Amino acid sequence: MIQNNSYDADTLHEECGVFGMYDFDGADVASTIYYGLFALQHRGQESCGIAVSDTSGPKGKVLSYKGMGLVNEVFAPENLEQMKGDIGVGHVRYSTAGSSTRENAQPLVLNYVKGTLALAHNGNLINAPQLRKELEYTGAIFQTTIDSEVIAYYIARERLNSQSAEEAVRRACQRLKGAYALVVTSPRKLIGARDPYGFKPLCIGKRDNSYIITSETCALDTIGATFVRDVLPGEVVTISPEKGIESDMTMALPKEKEARCIFEYIYFARPDSHIDGVSVYASRIKAGKFLAQDSPVEADLVTGVPESGNAAALGYSLASGIPYGTAFVKNSYVGRTFIKPKQSSRESSVQVKLNVLREAVAGKRVIMIDDSIVRGTTSDRIVRMLRDAGATEVHVRISSPPFLWPCYFGTDIPAREQLIAYNRTIEEICQIIGADSLGYLGIDRLKEMAEGLPICTGCFTGKYPMEPPKQDIRGEYYDKEIDLERKMSR
Amino acid sequence: MIQNNSYDADTLHEECGVFGMYDFDGADVASTIYYGLFALQHRGQESCGIAVSDTSGPKGKVLSYKGMGLVNEVFAPENLEQMKGDIGVGHVRYSTAGSSTRENAQPLVLNYVKGTLALAHNGNLINAPQLRKELEYTGAIFQTTIDSEVIAYYIARERLNSQSAEEAVRRACQRLKGAYALVVTSPRKLIGARDPYGFKPLCIGKRDNSYIITSETCALDTIGATFVRDVLPGEVVTISPEKGIESDMTMALPKEKEARCIFEYIYFARPDSHIDGVSVYASRIKAGKFLAQDSPVEADLVTGVPESGNAAALGYSLASGIPYGTAFVKNSYVGRTFIKPKQSSRESSVQVKLNVLREAVAGKRVIMIDDSIVRGTTSDRIVRMLRDAGATEVHVRISSPPFLWPCYFGTDIPAREQLIAYNRTIEEICQIIGADSLGYLGIDRLKEMAEGLPICTGCFTGKYPMEPPKQDIRGEYYDKEIDLERKMSR
Amino acid sequence: MIQNNSYDADTLHEECGVFGMYDFDGADVASTIYYGLFALQHRGQESCGIAVSDTSGPKGKVLSYKGMGLVNEVFAPENLEQMKGDIGVGHVRYSTAGSSTRENAQPLVLNYVKGTLALAHNGNLINAPQLRKELEYTGAIFQTTIDSEVIAYYIARERLNSQSAEEAVRRACQRLKGAYALVVTSPRKLIGARDPYGFKPLCIGKRDNSYIITSETCALDTIGATFVRDVLPGEVVTISPEKGIESDMTMALPKEKEARCIFEYIYFARPDSHIDGVSVYASRIKAGKFLAQDSPVEADLVTGVPESGNAAALGYSLASGIPYGTAFVKNSYVGRTFIKPKQSSRESSVQVKLNVLREAVAGKRVIMIDDSIVRGTTSDRIVRMLRDAGATEVHVRISSPPFLWPCYFGTDIPAREQLIAYNRTIEEICQIIGADSLGYLGIDRLKEMAEGLPICTGCFTGKYPMEPPKQDIRGEYYDKEIDLERKMSR
Amino acid sequence: MIQNNSYDADTLHEECGVFGMYDFDGADVASTIYYGLFALQHRGQESCGIAVSDTSGPKGKVLSYKGMGLVNEVFAPENLEQMKGDIGVGHVRYSTAGSSTRENAQPLVLNYVKGTLALAHNGNLINAPQLRKELEYTGAIFQTTIDSEVIAYYIARERLNSQSAEEAVRRACQRLKGAYALVVTSPRKLIGARDPYGFKPLCIGKRDNSYIITSETCALDTIGATFVRDVLPGEVVTISPEKGIESDMTMALPKEKEARCIFEYIYFARPDSHIDGVSVYASRIKAGKFLAQDSPVEADLVTGVPESGNAAALGYSLASGIPYGTAFVKNSYVGRTFIKPKQSSRESSVQVKLNVLREAVAGKRVIMIDDSIVRGTTSDRIVRMLRDAGATEVHVRISSPPFLWPCYFGTDIPAREQLIAYNRTIEEICQIIGADSLGYLGIDRLKEMAEGLPICTGCFTGKYPMEPPKQDIRGEYYDKEIDLERKMSR
Repeated sequence: MIQNNSYDADTLHEECGVFGMYDFDGADVASTIYYGLFALQHRGQESCGIAVSDTSGPKGKVLSYKGMGLVNEVFAPENLEQMKGDIGVGHVRYSTAGSSTRENAQPLVLNYVKGTLALAHNGNLINAPQLRKELEYTGAIFQTTIDSEVIAYYIARERLNSQSAEEAVRRACQRLKGAYALVVTSPRKLIGARDPYGFKPLCIGKRDNSYIITSETCALDTIGATFVRDVLPGEVVTISPEKGIESDMTMALPKEKEARCIFEYIYFARPDSHIDGVSVYASRIKAGKFLAQDSPVEADLVTGVPESGNAAALGYSLASGIPYGTAFVKNSYVGRTFIKPKQSSRESSVQVKLNVLREAVAGKRVIMIDDSIVRGTTSDRIVRMLRDAGATEVHVRISSPPFLWPCYFGTDIPAREQLIAYNRTIEEICQIIGADSLGYLGIDRLKEMAEGLPICTGCFTGKYPMEPPKQDIRGEYYDKEIDLERKMSR
Repeated sequence: MIQNNSYDADTLHEECGVFGMYDFDGADVASTIYYGLFALQHRGQESCGIAVSDTSGPKGKVLSYKGMGLVNEVFAPENLEQMKGDIGVGHVRYSTAGSSTRENAQPLVLNYVKGTLALAHNGNLINAPQLRKELEYTGAIFQTTIDSEVIAYYIARERLNSQSAEEAVRRACQRLKGAYALVVTSPRKLIGARDPYGFKPLCIGKRDNSYIITSETCALDTIGATFVRDVLPGEVVTISPEKGIESDMTMALPKEKEARCIFEYIYFARPDSHIDGVSVYASRIKAGKFLAQDSPVEADLVTGVPESGNAAALGYSLASGIPYGTAFVKNSYVGRTFIKPKQSSRESSVQVKLNVLREAVAGKRVIMIDDSIVRGTTSDRIVRMLRDAGATEVHVRISSPPFLWPCYFGTDIPAREQLIAYNRTIEEICQIIGADSLGYLGIDRLKEMAEGLPICTGCFTGKYPMEPPKQDIRGEYYDKEIDLERKMSR
Repeated sequence: MIQNNSYDADTLHEECGVFGMYDFDGADVASTIYYGLFALQHRGQESCGIAVSDTSGPKGKVLSYKGMGLVNEVFAPENLEQMKGDIGVGHVRYSTAGSSTRENAQPLVLNYVKGTLALAHNGNLINAPQLRKELEYTGAIFQTTIDSEVIAYYIARERLNSQSAEEAVRRACQRLKGAYALVVTSPRKLIGARDPYGFKPLCIGKRDNSYIITSETCALDTIGATFVRDVLPGEVVTISPEKGIESDMTMALPKEKEARCIFEYIYFARPDSHIDGVSVYASRIKAGKFLAQDSPVEADLVTGVPESGNAAALGYSLASGIPYGTAFVKNSYVGRTFIKPKQSSRESSVQVKLNVLREAVAGKRVIMIDDSIVRGTTSDRIVRMLRDAGATEVHVRISSPPFLWPCYFGTDIPAREQLIAYNRTIEEICQIIGADSLGYLGIDRLKEMAEGLPICTGCFTGKYPMEPPKQDIRGEYYDKEIDLERKMSR
Repeated sequence: MIQNNSYDADTLHEECGVFGMYDFDGADVASTIYYGLFALQHRGQESCGIAVSDTSGPKGKVLSYKGMGLVNEVFAPENLEQMKGDIGVGHVRYSTAGSSTRENAQPLVLNYVKGTLALAHNGNLINAPQLRKELEYTGAIFQTTIDSEVIAYYIARERLNSQSAEEAVRRACQRLKGAYALVVTSPRKLIGARDPYGFKPLCIGKRDNSYIITSETCALDTIGATFVRDVLPGEVVTISPEKGIESDMTMALPKEKEARCIFEYIYFARPDSHIDGVSVYASRIKAGKFLAQDSPVEADLVTGVPESGNAAALGYSLASGIPYGTAFVKNSYVGRTFIKPKQSSRESSVQVKLNVLREAVAGKRVIMIDDSIVRGTTSDRIVRMLRDAGATEVHVRISSPPFLWPCYFGTDIPAREQLIAYNRTIEEICQIIGADSLGYLGIDRLKEMAEGLPICTGCFTGKYPMEPPKQDIRGEYYDKEIDLERKMSR
């Protein structure tokens, strides 16, 4: 199976999107959550789920439904109507191969000493294995391989020593190391939490008399809500009809220690979103402009590899004065489940998804902008397609620095040996992908891209905002259950 | 939706069937478990699952798959082949409305301090609510509403103080009150446990160099295995290549305190099974003979309501000399998912499933044997069908005593107010169902039916082998998640 | 895939069942047709369909739906409600391997010169290949491989020379050679036709102000309709609000030339049906009595192989005085789609479906009655199971004569070389199946079984009521489209 | 259900795409046809099908599979492998509501006097009703409501008087009036035919030793084939290993009478295709340039409504010098089956699919280019979204003239009363959609767009290349079968 937006799986994957909502007027929230998740679909296409409850009903009754697939495959609209409830949370998920089972879909719904919670989480904990062990030694059992279950246990245990659900959430968070953007619905409260480094985005919106906590502002636009503010790094936010928005900043770090994931700006987030006050679209335009300044080249056309390269290409064009144009047509029916038949193999994956507009490139010197090169296989192919269509020169510009290090905080970067930039000079990479020249965005430009916000550059520099785990923690729990679900449900 | 084997849902439901297997030669067990579950399908038609692991592989890697529906709907044979493993456990489940979700399907697979366990369970714990509370107050979270999760927690916690997995199972069992027949697979052991009263059946079989622990002997016959012996009430059995079958009788009660569920003999178990040395078929023949002795009547034909009334009808015929015959044709395509269209409603559920053989009954005085009357709606309808087909008299004989009390140990008996026998004399019931005479099996005959084995007669007498819970415990957790799954998956 | 009611596919297959209905009061008929098809499910489990139209609506508007599978798999009740119409026809189909595609499902809905017809057909035409060729040479195109399409063409063409739809149906029928029971809905008429030999059953029923034409009376019972009369061999029946039931006997042959398929009585029809005034159940009881008279043997128990051997077993018991009993338990979840996993193969198909009641047979001399032996593989297995369960002697009695010849009229009998009776004496067959003795029903008894009605005995005697085709006509068109549908839809 | 690429169903629909292939080396073609159809998916998303046969196998054996949905929903790759055959044809289809049933899916496979044909067709015949009547009066029956069945009949009938399959195809075509691009596979020949007006595109490609006839050149690119030439208006092309490409121009009209559908260039075709030597992309760029010349306006940004407005926007920018930019983000998961839940209705369809990039438009005078306005509801909404995002002026430019007349040749234009341009001035339309100014492409510019090729402008001018039918022929057969299929299969 080939992911959407990817040519040859040669792209990175985000892990999750969250969307919680509480309607103080008591209206049902399930179908709005559905729309919200639909707007966040780019953050995870493997599974999704919604859990709602009725704040005026019996305490602890949660209706939930999860499944493998896209939100409009999993949810039939007539059935959303059955999910009655004025508070709820939804989740979309991408996962690395092996643990992509329905059991691991979120939200996690659980009964604990104080009732019922639903919990959705985006990010990756680096101390999850230790926390699991610790919990197991005090009698915990684990039915999934997701970090959310670890978080849920700590909330449940801290609840015994806490005055409120939000205090339990905060106390639980204080044990976590890593990246998390969390939405929890307790019977009468909508709680959001963001790790002190602010790796993952989380924001608050409002529509009439209802509040939303979600991963990206594009989900607010889609449902017609107004942006209120971002949840701050290290903040625990509690929303209730009685007290509105309450904030607990106990966990917060000094601002300079924050470490937003720069890849949200480069690639993950939708361009129409704003994260911590910075427009994703504007940051990509800016990256293109920096490339034009730092890696100039004479050419006749600047074009982006769709969709994610387009904004940077426009920026490059604006800064360089070289005309911007579309050079590619993407087959818009390439979906999550496009599966290659075994064939005499004349048809390549890239060609099936992308075609070059001969008229646009023939006889021209082309600057082709992409957001990143992972293994390099796709870039090589696309450069060749441009040449076959008559481009006289192909200059590749990448709107991020070269990948060199693993990410421990939720981005699925392959092993170093598979990274094209590992142990290679830029010239060598340029030769491999067959370009006339190659330029990467400089590491120093990243912070500018994010308008000065403190960012994490670990995958480029190997310098992480916190001590990385000794061994690679990914995969330890991943193979417990093979992906029988998908195979069986076909 | 209407259950298989039921006319108008006017029948009782069993809750589960279990089938565990360990092949010492290392051959895969999944497809044999599949056949075993198929033979146990009558014990539960709502969901099923299989979990296997490879004793020579990495410790704690369990492959599991569960789903809503019949075993041959849930499992595609080509995919059973992917479930590699020489030890495993399977489960079929019936559940009361409301908690029939995929989350609640078994086996439960869990990681705990000592690795990974899979667990399948038949029965009902009367102290589950208290145990849940107790666990919650020490930091447990619950993701399902099934008792197995409670049991799993206690196994995990006792494991910290135990020398072995089987000791942990036994220590966990000692905290449980109620009915349970349990199969657990630890990485290198197949463990079975039966509650001290022996409510639910559990037996051991052998085929070549592999061992089986399962609910009924019919599953052994189906897979070509030999019956070894029953697991005894109160016994924990551990099977391993090193030590063969080991037995721990610590929990056992004096034999006279045992309390087998008599409904296994009357209705639940397949007639070709033997439970604790007693043939189910023979016990039903016997019940028919007792009815002939205790409720004699002159007639021309004895017939059974298919399928469960047939054996008792044959017994009645043998004892009375009145000829046995088939009076009904059952539509063999009435399955679990036969759904009535909303219609002008001329077609009744009973008529769709059952037709009378006019030739067999016209002009005859008929004795019609059924295993039980719950609400009475079906009996009334069938008596009328017999009369319409020309029967001159219809005498109804029931191979069990009247239901009067709730069951706390796993049988889904409706509320007293819905039971036809509640607050009515036999004459009144006879009138309601329109029969010429009506006879029930005497309570004193039940123990004879089971060849003297100590039995539980709580549902007839209100005398339970242990103190029943103060309030009805069923339902407390049942409504947490409505059956969206079924609706959504259609 | 293994058919329902079959052990090892060692049984015969019927090809179809039809159910047409016209409600003069204008009520919708789709859900009643659904119930009718459900009652006829034993006549065909591979595909089914319903087509309805509204006699008060625009002429020629037919709503139809067909699919692969059982009626309750293909039709969702909520959608039957969308099939508005007061006249309609339904069909269930079994087909030989290869042509089991959705394209070949019935009813066939077609536009022709006079509007729209829907047509459902049971039987087999022996001159279909010639008729197809003839039609092709006058410009016909064929989109299916079913005989119904040939019939439809002739109706369409004869309509040009006919005064009425029924005249066109009759004229078309006069060109057909072979077996057919046909139901046609024209915009305002329900038409039934039965071939002059009367191979296949067809009868008329009534419920309030609506009429039914269907294959078997059991379908009338199921929907609460009254039996009116059989459609006669060679009769074309037309039912309309204006004229009620009209009859055209132009095609009829002298009564002694009629040739009903005796296998309807022996095995195909449901025992609660009556065909041409003869009870199927009674005819099977009679077959058992004849066997007792003609092939007596001393024994302790008479038992039937479920379900089809039970009635003959009861007849044998009544005539011989040897007690009747149940010796087998059949797994009632063995459905159309029970699929064997590839396994270490210890589990046999017969064992999975059937188990012996040890208590019933141990130490006894058993007479086992079955309806037929095709290849003999199943009989051999069942005899062995009885011996393994302790039967001291096993005497097999078959309620039909040995199969020796092909059927050209709709029964799927395998090639002669595969028939156990071909070129073998009864003693040799007895040895092969491992029985102590073997007796078949005498050919002379068949007519008595059917109470003197003229029957076809071609498959036993090779004497057919009409000249058989020179070469085997089956299969010529069958392989055009492989069964991709089933494979793809899984 | 909402179509892909559409906001509010306020777009036009193409009816079909075809892809035939013959591999002279005998390799299987099914998976390549699959890729070809995937590239043509934009031409029809409701149903699809593939039919293949083996030229070295038994004559007339065709394997076909069709289904409702996208090609990668209908075809599972592992099953394409079962479709063995070196010649075949595939089809994607869009259909107007009502006749969207599986029965109407193509290719049509039929047996006729000379063997078996498979046929796929794009276009609309205006004399189909008369041809149907004529055929019915000579004994034809119709099982579908598609024109292909009419064509198939004429091929079958003309075959009786023809020397070859291609002659029969040509003779059949000579009876057809209207638009058709046809691919037929006879047992050993691949035949293509295009109507004399050339309404619909059809071209020939080659890959190694195999030939392709398909709707658009983008399908050739996708499978790595080389473009050979277009099939000419009025040409019948026959491709065989013996004679290569043969051409029959009997039907051809004088070049000036040709009448290509201009909407292929404006909207239907993929921009990377070339039709009759004209690049679709270049023609759209040109349309944008014409708009800039004919409807100039001062502004800060030119943007296209994605995807179809982008090329014209680029053209406008190039001609006007006003910078081009992206103003919208489209949710790329909006698929064919995106279904709106009934909701409190705050979420609009447009907003769910499209969001404005505030940064790109705030404070700017925006020129927004779209390919057409049908009902106007979407345009109104998008203009408002731009203003809400801060655009100070919104000038709308449409790269086609106003729709005023029905299309009889395959484009699904709504009734005149629903067309916003009907009976309104451009100023009135501008007011309705809330724009500051509005400009349409001039009718005189259309021919220039197509580089002087003769085109059909019927939908803009009411002047058709042939006499239109007296009454609207669409819909006559469309409602025969409601879309039960879709509803049932959910």
